[in-house]
Amino acid sequence: MKRIAVITSGGDAPGMNACIRAIVLTASQHDIEVIGFRHGFRGIVEDLNQPLHPNDMRLVSQRGGTILLSSRYPQFKEVDAARQAAAVLDQHDISALVVIGGDGSFRGAHHLDQYWDGQVLGLPGTIDNDLAGTDTTIGFTTAVDTAMEAIDRIRETAEAMARVFLIEVMGRHAGFIGLHSAIAGSAEAMLVPELEPQPKLADLADSIRRARQAFPDSSYLIVVSENLWPGGVEELARQLTQATGTTCHSAPLGHIQRGGRPNAADRILSMQLGQAAVHAVLDGISGHMIGVEQGHVVRVPLHLTFERDKQLDSRLVDLQLGLQQLNFASNVVKESA
Amino acid sequence: MKRIAVITSGGDAPGMNACIRAIVLTASQHDIEVIGFRHGFRGIVEDLNQPLHPNDMRLVSQRGGTILLSSRYPQFKEVDAARQAAAVLDQHDISALVVIGGDGSFRGAHHLDQYWDGQVLGLPGTIDNDLAGTDTTIGFTTAVDTAMEAIDRIRETAEAMARVFLIEVMGRHAGFIGLHSAIAGSAEAMLVPELEPQPKLADLADSIRRARQAFPDSSYLIVVSENLWPGGVEELARQLTQATGTTCHSAPLGHIQRGGRPNAADRILSMQLGQAAVHAVLDGISGHMIGVEQGHVVRVPLHLTFERDKQLDSRLVDLQLGLQQLNFASNVVKESA
Amino acid sequence: MKRIAVITSGGDAPGMNACIRAIVLTASQHDIEVIGFRHGFRGIVEDLNQPLHPNDMRLVSQRGGTILLSSRYPQFKEVDAARQAAAVLDQHDISALVVIGGDGSFRGAHHLDQYWDGQVLGLPGTIDNDLAGTDTTIGFTTAVDTAMEAIDRIRETAEAMARVFLIEVMGRHAGFIGLHSAIAGSAEAMLVPELEPQPKLADLADSIRRARQAFPDSSYLIVVSENLWPGGVEELARQLTQATGTTCHSAPLGHIQRGGRPNAADRILSMQLGQAAVHAVLDGISGHMIGVEQGHVVRVPLHLTFERDKQLDSRLVDLQLGLQQLNFASNVVKESA
Amino acid sequence: MKRIAVITSGGDAPGMNACIRAIVLTASQHDIEVIGFRHGFRGIVEDLNQPLHPNDMRLVSQRGGTILLSSRYPQFKEVDAARQAAAVLDQHDISALVVIGGDGSFRGAHHLDQYWDGQVLGLPGTIDNDLAGTDTTIGFTTAVDTAMEAIDRIRETAEAMARVFLIEVMGRHAGFIGLHSAIAGSAEAMLVPELEPQPKLADLADSIRRARQAFPDSSYLIVVSENLWPGGVEELARQLTQATGTTCHSAPLGHIQRGGRPNAADRILSMQLGQAAVHAVLDGISGHMIGVEQGHVVRVPLHLTFERDKQLDSRLVDLQLGLQQLNFASNVVKESA
Repeated sequence: MKRIAVITSGGDAPGMNACIRAIVLTASQHDIEVIGFRHGFRGIVEDLNQPLHPNDMRLVSQRGGTILLSSRYPQFKEVDAARQAAAVLDQHDISALVVIGGDGSFRGAHHLDQYWDGQVLGLPGTIDNDLAGTDTTIGFTTAVDTAMEAIDRIRETAEAMARVFLIEVMGRHAGFIGLHSAIAGSAEAMLVPELEPQPKLADLADSIRRARQAFPDSSYLIVVSENLWPGGVEELARQLTQATGTTCHSAPLGHIQRGGRPNAADRILSMQLGQAAVHAVLDGISGHMIGVEQGHVVRVPLHLTFERDKQLDSRLVDLQLGLQQLNFASNVVKESA
Repeated sequence: MKRIAVITSGGDAPGMNACIRAIVLTASQHDIEVIGFRHGFRGIVEDLNQPLHPNDMRLVSQRGGTILLSSRYPQFKEVDAARQAAAVLDQHDISALVVIGGDGSFRGAHHLDQYWDGQVLGLPGTIDNDLAGTDTTIGFTTAVDTAMEAIDRIRETAEAMARVFLIEVMGRHAGFIGLHSAIAGSAEAMLVPELEPQPKLADLADSIRRARQAFPDSSYLIVVSENLWPGGVEELARQLTQATGTTCHSAPLGHIQRGGRPNAADRILSMQLGQAAVHAVLDGISGHMIGVEQGHVVRVPLHLTFERDKQLDSRLVDLQLGLQQLNFASNVVKESA
Repeated sequence: MKRIAVITSGGDAPGMNACIRAIVLTASQHDIEVIGFRHGFRGIVEDLNQPLHPNDMRLVSQRGGTILLSSRYPQFKEVDAARQAAAVLDQHDISALVVIGGDGSFRGAHHLDQYWDGQVLGLPGTIDNDLAGTDTTIGFTTAVDTAMEAIDRIRETAEAMARVFLIEVMGRHAGFIGLHSAIAGSAEAMLVPELEPQPKLADLADSIRRARQAFPDSSYLIVVSENLWPGGVEELARQLTQATGTTCHSAPLGHIQRGGRPNAADRILSMQLGQAAVHAVLDGISGHMIGVEQGHVVRVPLHLTFERDKQLDSRLVDLQLGLQQLNFASNVVKESA
Repeated sequence: MKRIAVITSGGDAPGMNACIRAIVLTASQHDIEVIGFRHGFRGIVEDLNQPLHPNDMRLVSQRGGTILLSSRYPQFKEVDAARQAAAVLDQHDISALVVIGGDGSFRGAHHLDQYWDGQVLGLPGTIDNDLAGTDTTIGFTTAVDTAMEAIDRIRETAEAMARVFLIEVMGRHAGFIGLHSAIAGSAEAMLVPELEPQPKLADLADSIRRARQAFPDSSYLIVVSENLWPGGVEELARQLTQATGTTCHSAPLGHIQRGGRPNAADRILSMQLGQAAVHAVLDGISGHMIGVEQGHVVRVPLHLTFERDKQLDSRLVDLQLGLQQLNFASNVVKESA
C-alpha cells in the first residue's frame, strides 16, 4: 500500500470534513499516508495537492463546507482529463482515490476508473440524498434540520400574520429534503417531484381557499421542491395570489441549506463511511461506493448509484399525506412513489 | 385607573411576547387588569378581545411571533375606524392603549389619539429599527443575529466552491439590518440605501473581477438591502453574472428574519419597555413612544418617531467600509450617513 | 371503537409533542376522539383529563417538553392504583391507552394491562435510548445533538486554554448518549458503562499524561456517562488532577440534554410512531410497544422491552475506539458490547 | 510606526477572533504589520510569535475561542517576566502591544507598561463584563445568550415535570451574567453577589414552598451566580431539598458559557474595538483600555478598569425584582446596586 488520495467534489455537504478526518486517522492507524487535492477533480488534473496529517484533523469535524474545497468540473468527462488525472495520481504514488460527492462526481470516478490502475472509491456526499444504494448521504439530515429550522421561523411570523407561504427547498430533481422537511415542519401541504400527477394550480388554489375559510386566523405552509414549478415559488406565489385573492408569499430557502455545522447523525455517518473507505481500500476494492443500508455498511458498484432512481420512502409519503389531509383536504394523489 | 389594552400591530418582531408579559406582570403589580385585542387595530375595531392574566405569561417570553397576532390594517386611517375603535375601548373600560409596532402602527396610534380620550402609548416593535427616537427596536438585534447566521452558512458553501453571493436582507427602506449583518458576517461589500451615491453596476462588476483575480479560490459576499436594486438580488445577480463572466448567486433571506426565539438583548429590551409603558400610563402620559437612548428609557412624542428619518450610526458605517476596503478595493462612497 | 387516551410518563423527551399531534390527527381521520391525562399515570388515577382536538395540535410539534406534562409515579406499582386507573379510563369510555415513555413507564403499562380490559400500547419516549426492541427512541437523537453542541462549545474554550475536560452526559445506566456524542464531538476518550473492564484511574491518568506530552497545546476531552464514576465527573476530575498534576476540569451537562426543540429525525420518528400507534389500536393490538427497527415499524411485547438489555452498536464502538486510538493510545478494551 | 503585537490573555471569550481580524485589517490599511504571540503573556516571554496576515483573517470572525490561544500566567507579576517580555517585544521591533483580556490581563498590561517603552493598550475581552470603564465586554452578550438558551432548555423539562431548578451561571465575582440571563430566561428568582443582604436559606425555602402551593404544576427556576453559595448550587440544592421537602435540582451550566460562535453584537463590538485600538496606537496612546460607553468609544487608564468595581445597571435589577415579585413573593432586598 502506498498512499490514499481524497477529494471532495460537486456541491459541498456538511459532514465532508468529518469524513476526511476519519479517512486520515484510520489510514494513519495502518501507516498509510493521505494526500488531498483541492477543488475536486480539477485539483487532481491541475495537481493542487495538499498533504493531510492526523494533527491537522483535530478541529475539522465540527465545521461545515469542505477544507479541501470543491468544484463542479464538467470537463472531466473528456478522456484526456481522466488520463491527465491518472498521470498526476501515479506521480504522487497514489494507489487509491476516495471521491466524496454526489452523482456527477461518481460518474467522474467511474470514468477515471477506466483510465487509471488504482482503486477508485466513492463516498456519498450530497445534501440531496439522491443516490441509489445508500439509505442516506453525508449532509442530508443536516440540510433537513436547516430547512426545518427555517420553516419553524417562517411558521412563527406566518402564524402571527395569518399568512400563506410557499417555501422552496433544495433537492435538485429529488424530493427527499422536501418530504422530510415537510413532515418535520408540520407543513399543510407539499409539492415534490415524485408525486404523480402533480396537483394543478386550480387544485392548490382550491385547497388554500378552503383552508382560509376554515381557519382564517391560521398560517398555511406549502413546502415545494426546487425545479418543480416553472419560475419557482415566486411565480407559483404570483399565480396562487391571483387565483385565490389571498396574498401568497414565497420563501426560497436557497443556499443556507448547504452550510452549517453538521448534526450528530451526519458526523457519525461521515466518520463511519470514512473508516469503511479505508477498510475497503485495504480489501482491494475498486469501482464501488461505500454506503449504508439499514444500519449496515454496504459496497455498491458505482454505476448502480447513478443509473437507478432512488425512491422516496413510501411510508413517510403516507405519513405526510395522512397528516396534511387531516388538516386540510388535499388533492395530491400519490402514485408511483 | 381602569384597564390597559395592548395590541401588536404591523410586522411581527421577536420580543413582542416578552413585552406583553412585562406589561401584564407590571400592571398586575399595580392591580391593573390588562386586556389584549388580537390582530392589531383591526382587532379593536372588531372587538376581538382577549383577557391577559399573569398566569398565562409563564412561557411566552421565549417564543417568536406574537401571541396576540398582528395584521396590517390600512383602513384604520379612516376617521370612522378610529371612532369605532374608541367606542370599543370605552365599552371595555379601557383607560390606556399600548401599541407595540412600527411606524405605520404609530401613525395609527397617533390617529386614534385624536378621537379617543384615553392614553395612547407606542412601544417600538419592528425588526427594521427604522424608528427615530430610540436607539434600537424590539426584534432588531434578533433579526441581525438570524441574518448573520444565514450569512455564516452561505459563507461556508461559498468558500468551499469559491463563489460570489448577493445576499438580500430585510429593512424595508432602511439599512440597519444590512449594515449590522454585513459587519457581523464579514461581508466583502454591502449595498444599503443610506450610502450615496449608490455604486453603479460597472463598479460592482469591477470590484468582483478584481477580487476574483486577487483571490480566485475565495468567496465574495455582498449584503444587499431589500428594495434597493430594481428586481432584487436575483436581477442584480443576473446583471453581474453577465458583466463579470463569473456566476453570481443570489440569496434572498426573506421571512426567516422575522421568526425565531428572541435573543437575550431583545428579551431584556422588551421587558424594560413593557415595564416602562405601565409606568408611563401611571404617570398619565399619552401620545408618546417609550424608547431607549444610550441605555436610558425615553418618552418621545409619537409623531417625532415617524416624521424624522433615523440615521445609521456613522461609526459603524466607517467600520464596515474600512474593513471591506481592506479586503477588496471598493468604490462605495459614503456621503450623508 | 370509543376513545383513545394518551399520557406522557417518566422523563420528558423532545418529540413527545409531535407524537401526540400525530396520534390526535390520525385518530381524528378515523373519527376517534383522543383524550389526554396530565402528569402520566398519576393523572389517570387522579382523573386530570384534558380533551385533545386536532386544532390544538397546530403549533406543538416544534416544542420540547410535553404539553401533557409528565411525572414519575412509583405508586403505580400497587394493584389499587392500577385498578383505580382502570376505573377512570372506563368512566371516560376509553378503549385504548397509549403510553409515551421509557422503561419504568412500560412496566406501569404492563402492570395496568393486567387490571384493565382496554388495549395498552407503549411508544418509546426517552432520551436514553435504553429500550430493547427499537433501534431508537423519541428524543434520543435530539439529546445527542444537544450534548454534541455543548461539547463543541467546550472544545473551543478547551482548545484556547489547552485544557483537559471530563464531560458528563446523561444515559442513566446506558452508554448510548455517551457513545454517540463522543463520536460526534471527536472526543479523545470516552467512558461508558458497556465497556468492560472499565479503565482504572491510573490508566486514565497515564493517557492524559502522554497526551499532554505529545500535544501540550491541545485540548483533551473525555466523555463520561453519568452514574459511572462514584462521585461523578467532579470527583473523577479531582482524582485525575491529583494523579496527573494537570488541572482536569469537570463539565456535567445535566438537564439541558432533556430540553430543546426536537430535531427533524425525532419529529419524523415521533409522528411515524404516533400514526402507527393509532393503526395498532385499530388492529386490536394490546400489550405491545410500537418501535422502529431498520426503518420498519415493529410491534414488540411490552415486557421484552424492559426485561432485556439493549446493546450498543458494536460498529460504532469500534469506530470511536479506532478514531480515539489514533489520537492517543487508550487502554480501553471492549469486551461484551 | 514599526509593528503591532497582539495577545489574547486569561479566559477566552467569543469575539476575540473578530477583534484580532479588525486589528490586522485596520493596521494593514495603514501599512503596519501585526504579529501575534500565542498563549498570552507567556507567549511573549517564551517568544511564541506568529505573523498575522490579512489573508489569514478571512474566516476567523465566526469562530469562538481564540486563534492566538490564551492562558492564565500568574508568573507575569514578577519584574523579571515583564523585563523578559519587553526584551522579546523589542527584539521583534514592536512599538505597540494590544492585550485582549480581562482584569488580570490588564494588571499584567499595566505591569508591563512600567518596564517597556512601547505603547500598551487593553481591549476588554471577558464574558464576565466585570471591567469598569466600559459598558460591555467582548463575549459578554454571547455568554448571556448561551446561558439563556440553556435556561430555556431547562425550562422545558422543568415545566414538563413541575420541577425546581437552581441554575448556576458564570461571572466570577460579578452578577452580570446572572442578572441578564435571569431576566432573559424569565427566572422566578436570582441570587447575584451585588444584592445585599443575601437571602437566607430559610427565605429561599419559604419562597419555594409558597410557589409550590400556589402553582404546584409549574416550574421554578432560580439563577445563581457562581462563587456565591458555599458548595455551589449542588450544595444549595441539597439544603433546599431538605428544607422544603421538594426535590430541588441543580444545574451548573459551566464552561459551555465560554464557547460558541459570537453573536452579532459581540462581533460588531469586537471589530469596533479592534479598529479603535489601531487608531489609538496611531494617536500615540499608551496605558489605556479602549472601551465603549453609551455607544461611544472611550479610552480609560488601565488601572481605573480594575481598581474600581463595576456596578450592575440598577434599572435592570429593578426590572428583574419587579417581574419576579409578580410571580412569587421574594425576600430579596436590593441595597447597594
